[in-house]
Amino acid sequence: MILVLIKKLEVTSARYLSVTTRRSSMAHVLNYNNMNPHIRSMEFAVRGPIVIRGEQLEHELKNGQIKSFSSIVRANIGDAHDMGQKPITWIRQILACASFPEFLKLSYIPHDVKTHVEEILADCGGKSIGAYTKSAGIECIRKHCANYIMERDGIQADYNNIIISNGASEAIRNILKLFANDQSPKQVGVMIPIPQYPLYSASLNEFNLAQIKYYLDEERNWGLSIDELERAINEAKSKYDVKAICVINPGNPTAQVLTRQNIEEIIRFAHKNKLFILADEVYQKNIHDPNSKFFSFKKVMKELGGDYKNYKDISVLIYSVELASFFSVSKGYMGECGIRSGYAELVNVDPKVIEALVKMISARLCANSLGQIALDAAVNPPKQGDPSYEQWLEETTSILSSMKERASLVQEAYSALEGISCSPIQGAMYAMPKIELPIKAIKKAQTLNVQPDFFYGMQMLEETGICTVPGSGFGQREGTYHFRCKIFLLLLLKKCNKYQKKLR
Amino acid sequence: MILVLIKKLEVTSARYLSVTTRRSSMAHVLNYNNMNPHIRSMEFAVRGPIVIRGEQLEHELKNGQIKSFSSIVRANIGDAHDMGQKPITWIRQILACASFPEFLKLSYIPHDVKTHVEEILADCGGKSIGAYTKSAGIECIRKHCANYIMERDGIQADYNNIIISNGASEAIRNILKLFANDQSPKQVGVMIPIPQYPLYSASLNEFNLAQIKYYLDEERNWGLSIDELERAINEAKSKYDVKAICVINPGNPTAQVLTRQNIEEIIRFAHKNKLFILADEVYQKNIHDPNSKFFSFKKVMKELGGDYKNYKDISVLIYSVELASFFSVSKGYMGECGIRSGYAELVNVDPKVIEALVKMISARLCANSLGQIALDAAVNPPKQGDPSYEQWLEETTSILSSMKERASLVQEAYSALEGISCSPIQGAMYAMPKIELPIKAIKKAQTLNVQPDFFYGMQMLEETGICTVPGSGFGQREGTYHFRCKIFLLLLLKKCNKYQKKLR
Repeated sequence: MILVLIKKLEVTSARYLSVTTRRSSMAHVLNYNNMNPHIRSMEFAVRGPIVIRGEQLEHELKNGQIKSFSSIVRANIGDAHDMGQKPITWIRQILACASFPEFLKLSYIPHDVKTHVEEILADCGGKSIGAYTKSAGIECIRKHCANYIMERDGIQADYNNIIISNGASEAIRNILKLFANDQSPKQVGVMIPIPQYPLYSASLNEFNLAQIKYYLDEERNWGLSIDELERAINEAKSKYDVKAICVINPGNPTAQVLTRQNIEEIIRFAHKNKLFILADEVYQKNIHDPNSKFFSFKKVMKELGGDYKNYKDISVLIYSVELASFFSVSKGYMGECGIRSGYAELVNVDPKVIEALVKMISARLCANSLGQIALDAAVNPPKQGDPSYEQWLEETTSILSSMKERASLVQEAYSALEGISCSPIQGAMYAMPKIELPIKAIKKAQTLNVQPDFFYGMQMLEETGICTVPGSGFGQREGTYHFRCKIFLLLLLKKCNKYQKKLR
Repeated sequence: MILVLIKKLEVTSARYLSVTTRRSSMAHVLNYNNMNPHIRSMEFAVRGPIVIRGEQLEHELKNGQIKSFSSIVRANIGDAHDMGQKPITWIRQILACASFPEFLKLSYIPHDVKTHVEEILADCGGKSIGAYTKSAGIECIRKHCANYIMERDGIQADYNNIIISNGASEAIRNILKLFANDQSPKQVGVMIPIPQYPLYSASLNEFNLAQIKYYLDEERNWGLSIDELERAINEAKSKYDVKAICVINPGNPTAQVLTRQNIEEIIRFAHKNKLFILADEVYQKNIHDPNSKFFSFKKVMKELGGDYKNYKDISVLIYSVELASFFSVSKGYMGECGIRSGYAELVNVDPKVIEALVKMISARLCANSLGQIALDAAVNPPKQGDPSYEQWLEETTSILSSMKERASLVQEAYSALEGISCSPIQGAMYAMPKIELPIKAIKKAQTLNVQPDFFYGMQMLEETGICTVPGSGFGQREGTYHFRCKIFLLLLLKKCNKYQKKLR
């Protein structure tokens, strides 16, 4: 069986390899050889060759070609609505009425939707979502974000430190870009977990920042050990100016939820090594394991007090850990990925750096207004007693509990498959099962000059229509192989099961 | 009088100068001294210190402070809705129904809005605007953009060459970024007009690309002369690898509309000098002068034929001019600035460069879905006979003819003011009057280390509440002074008139 698969894969791989090796036309002023080398070399596996092939297959199915599957399952990306999750009525009524305020007159629009929309429109130029907003976002929405954070952490938040963006991806990229310094004596380095969400590796590549990799420990449920952080920074120090550490909590693709103690250790480590912390907390509402709890880096840092406490007077040289925390409407119960909205909260950051950041983002004028309004609906939901509250509660609870259920089902189901093992899915939206591959398949992949799990993922797509992301796209320990898929569909598991049997 | 103004300005300027000169805290890991130097040095005058001061004044007014004006007039930016322009019902009904499809059931939603929304939702994952779209945009919307271009130019357009983005600003920045090459033996240079829209200078700065400035000739209504292009490139050639030319047509801030002959000359110049053309055509629907007509660079290039014709076989070494043309929903009759949507059409561009571009933008996943839908409503309006057609025609005609009227009124009114002259406003949305400043004011500005027209603009704001952008923010010939303001408000002219009298 495996030989047939390998034969098929040769054709598939050749098709993709051609993308990177075929001769570029030197006749072009701007060609593949002289274009931005950092963009040329960057990779973004979540939308990489397997996904592009998935799109082709989808076209082929549409055009009537016969396959062994009838549709493509896009398990490569945490895209809830694409998988059939229903939008939250509260969010959508607000978006619709803000777009076309005539609808505010409809009798069946609840009163709290009306007051919510009216408050936001009063803060928009000409009371229209068509006006540019301020570069950092609509003021009342930034205030609502600050309130949300205060309620979450029980700690003060200043709306002046909230910068709204077209999705958390843009926010993270904007902060990383601030570190790029081509005039620095040593290349600036940023610590990232392995496995990581490839936005980090792609953006570091683009900004010519060095990736300082620290490995998560799969044997201890993708735990983060300080010894490993120490190893990584000590090895990097002589060559790079290591300035920041990215932590993804809950983990993507690894689904672990950091303990409070672990977060404390990371903050102490960052403090000791003078590192700025980028806390990717976009899955903060997606905690599935009843024994896990989400703690924000900000809360833990503030509660640690002492050296870590915020300072008012920038002339005081007490060192305080600088932090950017990210939030997104794409995750949580919202799943509003297409709308592109998120924010960064900046804590202890040099006010002059914040000024420069706002200046930089002002060149793209503002984040999209409707995205900002969706963000508002997410951070400022109806309160108990409000007319929209019951429906909101029912919809959000149903989504979150269904995710919780699927998280444990998926993990059990994967673990039951031969040649697959899967760590507990404590949070976020993905499973990252480890796969054992036959030596023959590994060797064949090597001769094709592709990663063995890319080989596996591409073949699984061709055989079953399931689109996943190979572990090599996130990074993994040498000699281990994984794939990441979202936890949404059990259909996926059935197909995967069948494919596993075929492979053996 | 001028002395009182100067006294006041000293305080104002000191406040702003402090932004760039005050000591940054070296205690921070990321501080103003070690942050990305290209972001530190970048300027974006359209949202620069005058605008920031305008926002402060607005807060002061809100908090009850007494000024000689009761509101801030934001003439700094082409923000139609902020100035009271009404949104187009067709666009907004589509946005609202796409956000909350329940509204499609309402009897008073016209049938063409329903079919339009249904077609788009059918092309969205899970039929929801909450799903990520493809990186380059929703497929049917890219096809509608291609149709729009075909109808505009009478020439074939391929939707595979349309890349949708969060506004034309993002599209322009993405294309410019492709040229950045820190491994190039000579720094890569890009030709830009002076005056220019400062997105160009800011982005070139950020990407470490050299600005090769060509001056527009104010005496000939901001005309573009090939002699000046030759001068600019010849002076730059030895030091820089000049690879692209940006042309803004209709002009921003200069309001001229290029003749077809002028466009032909520019294309021949680009062809001769192997330059990629970035055609900023976002004001293509804003032509006010009855003797002017908009011609797209693509149409003119294709009709020139010969060496300029597109080639199918990239192995053929006939050189063809590479072109990116930009469109935006922020301009035209739409004025949907806050929604952030636009596209780039890429013509004759190396397919491998397009692949790399799509890979790069895939790291931010997709442009916001509702923006894409507003773009669709703009490029795919109702047809004669459709139920929404009459209202759409009435609304769009009224907006465009009112702009046309204001363009000529504003130009006449400025020209009638003492010490101000204003070139004809043939297109776009701005006036860029030239101002004569008293020598005393120029000297005082010099001692304050600010540009004289920044001095003028800041003082006009403090005195009248009008927020403009100084000519120095766009670039201008040495010794000339200007300000840019949008053509929306006549109130602005009255205030400006009063201020001019006071200044003298």
